[in-house]
Amino acid sequence: MIGKRMGVGTIKFDRPPRVRAWAAVGGKKEKEGPLGQEFDHVFPDTMCGESTWEKAEMHLQKVAVGMAANKCKLPVSAMDMVIAGDLLGQCVASSYAARGTQVPYLGVYGACSTMAESLGIAACMVDGGFAQRVCAVASSHFCTAERQYRFPLAYGGQRTPTAQWTATAAGACILTPAADDCAPVRITHVCFGKICDLGITDANNMGAAMAPAAYDTLRTLLSDTGTHPEDYDGIFTGDLGEVGSRLLCELFEQHGIQMAEKHEDCGKLLFDKKQDVHAGGSGCGCAASVLCAHLLPRLANGTYKRIILAATGALMSPTSVQQGESIPGVCHALVLESGKKG
Amino acid sequence: MIGKRMGVGTIKFDRPPRVRAWAAVGGKKEKEGPLGQEFDHVFPDTMCGESTWEKAEMHLQKVAVGMAANKCKLPVSAMDMVIAGDLLGQCVASSYAARGTQVPYLGVYGACSTMAESLGIAACMVDGGFAQRVCAVASSHFCTAERQYRFPLAYGGQRTPTAQWTATAAGACILTPAADDCAPVRITHVCFGKICDLGITDANNMGAAMAPAAYDTLRTLLSDTGTHPEDYDGIFTGDLGEVGSRLLCELFEQHGIQMAEKHEDCGKLLFDKKQDVHAGGSGCGCAASVLCAHLLPRLANGTYKRIILAATGALMSPTSVQQGESIPGVCHALVLESGKKG
Repeated sequence: MIGKRMGVGTIKFDRPPRVRAWAAVGGKKEKEGPLGQEFDHVFPDTMCGESTWEKAEMHLQKVAVGMAANKCKLPVSAMDMVIAGDLLGQCVASSYAARGTQVPYLGVYGACSTMAESLGIAACMVDGGFAQRVCAVASSHFCTAERQYRFPLAYGGQRTPTAQWTATAAGACILTPAADDCAPVRITHVCFGKICDLGITDANNMGAAMAPAAYDTLRTLLSDTGTHPEDYDGIFTGDLGEVGSRLLCELFEQHGIQMAEKHEDCGKLLFDKKQDVHAGGSGCGCAASVLCAHLLPRLANGTYKRIILAATGALMSPTSVQQGESIPGVCHALVLESGKKG
Repeated sequence: MIGKRMGVGTIKFDRPPRVRAWAAVGGKKEKEGPLGQEFDHVFPDTMCGESTWEKAEMHLQKVAVGMAANKCKLPVSAMDMVIAGDLLGQCVASSYAARGTQVPYLGVYGACSTMAESLGIAACMVDGGFAQRVCAVASSHFCTAERQYRFPLAYGGQRTPTAQWTATAAGACILTPAADDCAPVRITHVCFGKICDLGITDANNMGAAMAPAAYDTLRTLLSDTGTHPEDYDGIFTGDLGEVGSRLLCELFEQHGIQMAEKHEDCGKLLFDKKQDVHAGGSGCGCAASVLCAHLLPRLANGTYKRIILAATGALMSPTSVQQGESIPGVCHALVLESGKKG
């Protein structure tokens, strides 16, 4: 039992849970980005056929979960558990999306790190034998997030150069036990992160608030597993954006580790600079959809043998920012391997 | 592995994780209630020595976690994991409270069911061998919740007869593996609940919104374990209040099960009717503090041999209520046994 725990924080799975199926859905801007063709479904407008942006975000989750289940040739009701989260107060996109499923529901909150948190808990549930089929899902929506965290959209506020663009997207994964040979990707390790807060108070510079957490978790994971950046085909943070990514690589460089060559960021992958997103994408749906649209397919076909997904979250609220509090960052990381190896 | 899963949703722990230590902290009104003498610490005012109500709620969590760790003769930093939640948007009471701990942090959201969700995940983490010492914690604060969900306090809005009073309280538990003989309480089963929504739209009648979820989860747990209400010393929901409790017992009666004799509700236990709380207490801190102040000590000293804690949550947000959405309810249940038995 104790063997599962490596060093300070990394969990090694004795029987690596598998990712059986996944789906990514997004909006118009995501379709126009570099990964546009890799999404399972994109909606042509921000309402996704619903009457409010909040309902649109719920719809993104429902469609992502439904498509992932469909790829397993199963109804959503066949899941043992749904573990879900989003950016909205009281995580309503998730709870309302799960409302009709008749599946035990666990709500989680990790801001933009949510997909890694839900995947990590899901992997523990499967490896521990507590569930056979667990759906991990996360979403965000530019319009619901912008009006919650910053300004009413109609106000037309100027965005700062360090600001990131919340993805209108959702990603869903279905995890199954190690014995499921049909599942093409394995989760071998998870490292749940500690909260790091170096005093950043600018809600428009989340990359800087999250970079120290990403550094802390990745250093823990690399140290616990005795691996180096070159042992991976890519180390994908989500979502540090331009600013946070630069800071992360500098932090590693200061400690003698060359991260820049292997490092990519989901927030930088999702959008093109021409799309006027400033420092890059963000939101729970960013890492979730880049994982499901771009990374998992490459692990499944063997393009990648082994990667790290290190999703980062800025855990402030509109209230805490208004009260002048600094922004706590967190980062949860997973090691994903191509099932082709074993 | 599959053996851990009983029927639809109940997980049976092969090696029941233990509750090693716990602490309950509250405010003035909680002190004046029937359980006032059982709290580990009470604050004389709603600010708890802080400059905002939100910081006061963070402080409640910090004190509860610190006191629970202290009872284990350990620093908080010796925990492997903190699993925490609260009612505030983006769960800031939890993330800011965990900021200084240097412990891997998982944020969860289940509204007033949060303590059962965090305990359930914590128990899976311990039984699965992923952690040796996990702190599960939840909090709420009357002033932060009231202004978030309903009215500014200074407005002096009239409360309806079905309204519940959000507890200003926090509870924290430290879970350890089955082998820890010093830990006096065992968690033998957990049943994570499905979302039930029967169309209630009145945010001042949460008891009615949550009762169907409590019925669904408790029926699943009793059925999966082949037990009946009389097999328990008490079945404690949290927090259905007067209205929801009556509905729950009626639902069971309609299906030929006598629940009323064994049923208690944390929301009804925490406050006295004379305290003008209308239908009873609520909030993540209600079930959490009643568990830690009142139930765990009775399990530890053998007064109770076996109980169910079935914490219920109303998963709406201020935005979803304003948009006319109905209120999804959820209930997660745990079976707790006195360690004195084994």
